[in-house]
Amino acid sequence: MAYNLLKGKKGIIFGALNEMSIAWKVAERAHEEGATFTLTNTPVSIRLGTIDQLAKSTGSTVIPADATKFEDLSALIQQSMEILGGKVDFILHSIGMSPNVRKGRPYDDLDYAYYMQTMDISAFSFHKLLQAARKLDAINEWGSVVALSYIAAQRTLFRYNDMADAKAALESIARSFGYIYGRDRKIRVNTVSQSPTLTTAGSGVKGIDGLMDFTERMSPLGNATADECALYCITLFSDLTRKITMQNLFNDGGFSSMGMSARAMHVYKQSLDDCEDC
Amino acid sequence: MAYNLLKGKKGIIFGALNEMSIAWKVAERAHEEGATFTLTNTPVSIRLGTIDQLAKSTGSTVIPADATKFEDLSALIQQSMEILGGKVDFILHSIGMSPNVRKGRPYDDLDYAYYMQTMDISAFSFHKLLQAARKLDAINEWGSVVALSYIAAQRTLFRYNDMADAKAALESIARSFGYIYGRDRKIRVNTVSQSPTLTTAGSGVKGIDGLMDFTERMSPLGNATADECALYCITLFSDLTRKITMQNLFNDGGFSSMGMSARAMHVYKQSLDDCEDC
Amino acid sequence: MAYNLLKGKKGIIFGALNEMSIAWKVAERAHEEGATFTLTNTPVSIRLGTIDQLAKSTGSTVIPADATKFEDLSALIQQSMEILGGKVDFILHSIGMSPNVRKGRPYDDLDYAYYMQTMDISAFSFHKLLQAARKLDAINEWGSVVALSYIAAQRTLFRYNDMADAKAALESIARSFGYIYGRDRKIRVNTVSQSPTLTTAGSGVKGIDGLMDFTERMSPLGNATADECALYCITLFSDLTRKITMQNLFNDGGFSSMGMSARAMHVYKQSLDDCEDC
Amino acid sequence: MAYNLLKGKKGIIFGALNEMSIAWKVAERAHEEGATFTLTNTPVSIRLGTIDQLAKSTGSTVIPADATKFEDLSALIQQSMEILGGKVDFILHSIGMSPNVRKGRPYDDLDYAYYMQTMDISAFSFHKLLQAARKLDAINEWGSVVALSYIAAQRTLFRYNDMADAKAALESIARSFGYIYGRDRKIRVNTVSQSPTLTTAGSGVKGIDGLMDFTERMSPLGNATADECALYCITLFSDLTRKITMQNLFNDGGFSSMGMSARAMHVYKQSLDDCEDC
Repeated sequence: MAYNLLKGKKGIIFGALNEMSIAWKVAERAHEEGATFTLTNTPVSIRLGTIDQLAKSTGSTVIPADATKFEDLSALIQQSMEILGGKVDFILHSIGMSPNVRKGRPYDDLDYAYYMQTMDISAFSFHKLLQAARKLDAINEWGSVVALSYIAAQRTLFRYNDMADAKAALESIARSFGYIYGRDRKIRVNTVSQSPTLTTAGSGVKGIDGLMDFTERMSPLGNATADECALYCITLFSDLTRKITMQNLFNDGGFSSMGMSARAMHVYKQSLDDCEDC
Repeated sequence: MAYNLLKGKKGIIFGALNEMSIAWKVAERAHEEGATFTLTNTPVSIRLGTIDQLAKSTGSTVIPADATKFEDLSALIQQSMEILGGKVDFILHSIGMSPNVRKGRPYDDLDYAYYMQTMDISAFSFHKLLQAARKLDAINEWGSVVALSYIAAQRTLFRYNDMADAKAALESIARSFGYIYGRDRKIRVNTVSQSPTLTTAGSGVKGIDGLMDFTERMSPLGNATADECALYCITLFSDLTRKITMQNLFNDGGFSSMGMSARAMHVYKQSLDDCEDC
Repeated sequence: MAYNLLKGKKGIIFGALNEMSIAWKVAERAHEEGATFTLTNTPVSIRLGTIDQLAKSTGSTVIPADATKFEDLSALIQQSMEILGGKVDFILHSIGMSPNVRKGRPYDDLDYAYYMQTMDISAFSFHKLLQAARKLDAINEWGSVVALSYIAAQRTLFRYNDMADAKAALESIARSFGYIYGRDRKIRVNTVSQSPTLTTAGSGVKGIDGLMDFTERMSPLGNATADECALYCITLFSDLTRKITMQNLFNDGGFSSMGMSARAMHVYKQSLDDCEDC
Repeated sequence: MAYNLLKGKKGIIFGALNEMSIAWKVAERAHEEGATFTLTNTPVSIRLGTIDQLAKSTGSTVIPADATKFEDLSALIQQSMEILGGKVDFILHSIGMSPNVRKGRPYDDLDYAYYMQTMDISAFSFHKLLQAARKLDAINEWGSVVALSYIAAQRTLFRYNDMADAKAALESIARSFGYIYGRDRKIRVNTVSQSPTLTTAGSGVKGIDGLMDFTERMSPLGNATADECALYCITLFSDLTRKITMQNLFNDGGFSSMGMSARAMHVYKQSLDDCEDC
């Protein structure tokens, strides 16, 4: 069931790789809610994924862009405005990658060129996007920008590695730029801190199944799915949340406010009683 | 413009005194979005305010209840279910009062009977409401309960007095009960931390005009109005935010994430330069 | 090894029941660091525990007081000043009790008279103590007041029940009164949020062993012991932390900043693989 | 008055430029408390400042190092161990610089090469330091590492610019590495979030006088000075705080927990009443 929440709104959606992607779900739902938008990803991701299907089903154009390149972002925004016929109302930033994680470099043996890349891809890209949009005056008043984040920005999870630092920086950028963009153009900037999600990116995180079982049992409502994240993003793009800005908003079934649940402790205790090498 | 976001949903709305009330605005908007609901307040507030107008314009029934009395709340919920024809889907708790503030007792000279009353009216009433609803199994799966809070729960504001402690307890109750109600019935419980608002309650706070000017200039998007709070509550009652629970959500134009804005400092500095007794 | 950190300082220590108590350890260490102080607890706790031993070993006087009674607290403070020969420099509040927990009332079936008592004993007692001290002008400039708290104030732990709400209120009181007492008398007020600890009170919490194993493995430095809590409190009473106020300070081996550790996940996963009814 | 809190402890102190520096005060106090240590800064800062005086008065050796160069840090640590005769017990990281701020580039017109430098100097340098120490196994068990931070990591202050993002990353690094270093070597890693301070670095921030007046009046105990920060750091280096790790600790007179003080509002209101263009 759709509500026309984004009727007439224009947007840009980053990060749809395939149908498991959160960005994919956001695009589908934004389409149902009446929005028009462009889709973007890196040339490699466009080749590897199935974004063209999404473009077709939502009537969107795919514009390749490397989100670490300011010029690419500027060109993307300009083309989007041309295609959509004016300024945009919403942008989704769903971008994150750590070469250190990919190459198996643990956090106490980081490669510093990779570390910079992690930061550039996963955090600075958000600043570049906002600065490019600001310079082009590309977002309508009361527009809304959302970036996807993760609780690792606040609490350390083993193996999440330097992505934690990137997410912390990402959330800071949302605040820092949110102040300026709000003050000058009435545009809001927020991050959504999502449950661990079985996207292609998520599946790559070693041991994510154990973690997802834990967060599922810790969260009174269970983990939030990619679909549920999409619905939440729609509310943040809509006109119903105009004074929400500079916030990090948890879409996580309650996990962030849990210390210990009965269900998670049940599993944990079982093990303590049975396990030999624990 | 309405979206049918609450089409077919039933609810109970606490705390509408007159047309300045946030609860009033929530009721009006919930009505526009397709919800049916009962309205409630204390007998005194019903007499002093204009809630009957609201009942008329929204086709609602007013049921008097003292929110500190468990039996009153149980009766209210039962009557609501009878009137609405079944379990409810959403509840708004907009209740707060401090006899210490009213009687001018400063925070280092509290009357302890009053302090208990502040806590009972402003925080425990929320627990009683949830416990009564839970015992009556009165909320549908994926229902949503929202209580209104204020940033004084995190940061001290002079003159806000013992209401700060009550709001801290209120937000804790949302988490504590949110865990149980989520786990057992898939019901979410959140608080919305709203900008200072010129309701009848708000106007009573001495010096609120200076504070509201400050928060207006600190917040990049300015203070959130009662109308804007209502819109936000609608999103939290809708099916678009099903995995948001146990959260305290700031609807404040960015104030909670600000350390100092250029606009607020402009006023402050002006004064420093001119003021003789500063 | 002692440092004379509290040389010449006077204090009041609440809550030493027996040698497992955190307050007991604080008293012993404060004595070693050169402080003199009075000890206090309820008449019942004095009878049930072994506080007289502590009084003897630290050269202290025990003064019975019911911390929910303002007059008892006033009398205690006055007697303490007489015995110690002047105003005090530090106070430790280590008080908490929930009749609901004791009587096995779950959080969705609270007895409201008990709930009030939980709040009165575990939170309002702190306000009463501060208000009594303030009215008697009983604390020297740059004095320090510490109350013991727990992370349940921020994150829900099953079975911790209404104590979570009381701890949230306690931490709010520290902020609210800390503002006034700091501004008017340069006195700081903080809470220390301690690891779960096997005190007599802690042992009473059902299932605390499973929880303590979990927090031990989650925390990179392991749980903080009562002795370690005492050392930390000493730093907060000393002249080295004069500008620390209105803070909630975690003494927990890092637990509060952890999302998931390798060691805790090892146990959890083991169970997932082996457990039949999980 | 000294307490011998660091008797026999060895350390490395980064960031002493001149006698206004927080690091300078930490060095002086650490010396009084019985520690021996090396001092380090960039070659340029050593030339511009007066660190040699400090080295003389504290019996320390100055070792130049560029904290963005892993090899420099490794060499520094190795030389420090040779000079001090073994592993170290504490390290102070007091490093931060933004070329964007220096060159007057506002946050919506950042130079991205500068942005990388801000991040590298002000945040990654902390990771490099920890990784170098870890690889050399250069810190004794129960050692303590502290980095200086600022509340801009949580709340936006106009003009603080990209340093806010760097401080957010810095605090994240403290958590991420604190987990590993704690788990593997019992070493704690924290950040101290200090009041705005009139160091040479602080003075460079445009408009810092207005901000410092505001924070002074907002904080019940007033701003924390560099001397007070030094005392606090000593407690964190001592054996009294062994279970404090992965924390961001505010040394700020209460500012971080304030929403509005009577004193700050007095100034603000004055201006509202008088000011013509407000």
